[in-house]
Amino acid sequence: MKIAIYGYGNLGRGVEAAVINSSDTELCGVFTRRAPETVKTISGTKVYHVDDILKHKNDIDVVIICGGSATDLPKMTPELAKNFNVVDSFDTHAKIPEHFTRVDAAASETNHTALISGGWDPGMFSINRLYASAILPDGKDYTFWGKGVSQGHSDAIRRIDGVKDAKQYTVPIDEALSAVRSGSEPELNTRQKHLRECFVVAEDGADKARIESEIKTMPNYFADYDTIVHFISEEELSRDHSGIPHGGFVIRTGKTGINHENNHVIEYNLKLDSNPEFTASVLVAYARAINKLYNRGQYGCKTVFDIAPADLSPLSSEELRKSML
Amino acid sequence: MKIAIYGYGNLGRGVEAAVINSSDTELCGVFTRRAPETVKTISGTKVYHVDDILKHKNDIDVVIICGGSATDLPKMTPELAKNFNVVDSFDTHAKIPEHFTRVDAAASETNHTALISGGWDPGMFSINRLYASAILPDGKDYTFWGKGVSQGHSDAIRRIDGVKDAKQYTVPIDEALSAVRSGSEPELNTRQKHLRECFVVAEDGADKARIESEIKTMPNYFADYDTIVHFISEEELSRDHSGIPHGGFVIRTGKTGINHENNHVIEYNLKLDSNPEFTASVLVAYARAINKLYNRGQYGCKTVFDIAPADLSPLSSEELRKSML
Repeated sequence: MKIAIYGYGNLGRGVEAAVINSSDTELCGVFTRRAPETVKTISGTKVYHVDDILKHKNDIDVVIICGGSATDLPKMTPELAKNFNVVDSFDTHAKIPEHFTRVDAAASETNHTALISGGWDPGMFSINRLYASAILPDGKDYTFWGKGVSQGHSDAIRRIDGVKDAKQYTVPIDEALSAVRSGSEPELNTRQKHLRECFVVAEDGADKARIESEIKTMPNYFADYDTIVHFISEEELSRDHSGIPHGGFVIRTGKTGINHENNHVIEYNLKLDSNPEFTASVLVAYARAINKLYNRGQYGCKTVFDIAPADLSPLSSEELRKSML
Repeated sequence: MKIAIYGYGNLGRGVEAAVINSSDTELCGVFTRRAPETVKTISGTKVYHVDDILKHKNDIDVVIICGGSATDLPKMTPELAKNFNVVDSFDTHAKIPEHFTRVDAAASETNHTALISGGWDPGMFSINRLYASAILPDGKDYTFWGKGVSQGHSDAIRRIDGVKDAKQYTVPIDEALSAVRSGSEPELNTRQKHLRECFVVAEDGADKARIESEIKTMPNYFADYDTIVHFISEEELSRDHSGIPHGGFVIRTGKTGINHENNHVIEYNLKLDSNPEFTASVLVAYARAINKLYNRGQYGCKTVFDIAPADLSPLSSEELRKSML
């Protein structure tokens, strides 16, 4: 299966590594909006300008689109789905129905197959919410994120006057996790579920008390949370906080029995050293599935909910039943 | 959706409760090998003899077969699949390919749809092994069971001379779980992964030392494990050990990155008050999926690997994308 990478940032580089580390996939090119000669791929894969992608139409089984959800993917995915099978990681939850409709129209009309919103949330976390709620209809589910880096919150701190650099971690609160796992189905507010921990490099002579106060009272981003602010040096930031870890928990508790007398806990959790590389690995597995669906004539837009687990694997159904069931 | 229960033991009663607690399912009968007038259902559902099931053919969408894997299901599932859509929980892992072939032949020939080996292992654990290995091909997975009651091991203790009653718990060992979660991909032998804890009621005057020794040295069942034996009274056994809890962990750790430099941990775990009721809840969700596949003309035998998550839910694809993705 031949995969093209469309966009070469952290996610694109993650896809590059995942394709190389996978037994049945190969890279046929990286497509970028930058001048191709200025982009060097880690693996030596050839780089082309995005405007030239149609010239490679016959060499590509699936395009994995590695753009941002705010402005890139709403345009790129429907446009590319007219000529290619595509996979994206569109993650603006509220706008998924709209994105789906547009991608489905483009892919269906031209007999291509698309998957939107792959990754871990949306993605693996969504799948686990669905399975658990189908099995335990009388229950409640909870999603916790972290410990991990939130790019949006880190950026928000960097925009504060006097801040040179910053990294923000979203941290799930242990007491909340324990309460959820107990099966008591607690009502938890924002502050009870997560706290925010910030590592900030201040500019020389900046007023740290004012910076800390501006962070902690920032509406939407921090005001509703308990927030911890650490001021550290530039060296410490680059030494201890250069990774992009993330993860989280999807937990559903529910009851069974004629009198609802028995409790059950279903938990799925992830602990990821590299958020973009893990997301990329999920996208490559779904590219495999999308290629299978396309070859069976199943066109249009799909989500992770529509893909049977077997289609993600390079193994045959017989091998899967024998080795993994 | 109208469901028939075939076999009315612990699992059948669990299915009864799950069908009643589910919004889109109803029971159309319990079928038993016993004299129907001797069987009272918890919900008042009508009881019929298994020999009469063909008379109800037009009233049944899916038969959930609640028999044992050793001798019942290898006969019942292929036989019933000739006339009904069926779901079973066949759990003899080594014999799944053979069972699949026979059920597939029966269902395909008569245009019915069957699901075998539903439940949590095989079942939800299998799905999680598959997803995790597709996402992290460069990794290793581990399955731990417990803490939970093993019926087979409890029965083995009860067969020892001088034992009146017994309950055996399979217990995963914390150190092994920690080693696995660390990403070190340890090689663990049987003794390192689980221990066996036994609660035994001895007959008056029985030689407890001899019983304990017979348990601990029993080949296949206990000899390869560290085993703890507690002698307790009949009252204590019925007070503290009458439940059928179970659960376990599927953990895969794996690496990503061009140089395999980043570690990831994917974990799925279950903590179940009632093993049969949870298994039954999984079977009812798959009965829903099997009914959908049948209505689409997708006949033959399936496993949990072949069913897209959306098909387990009573919600439409639109509702799922909006509320759970």
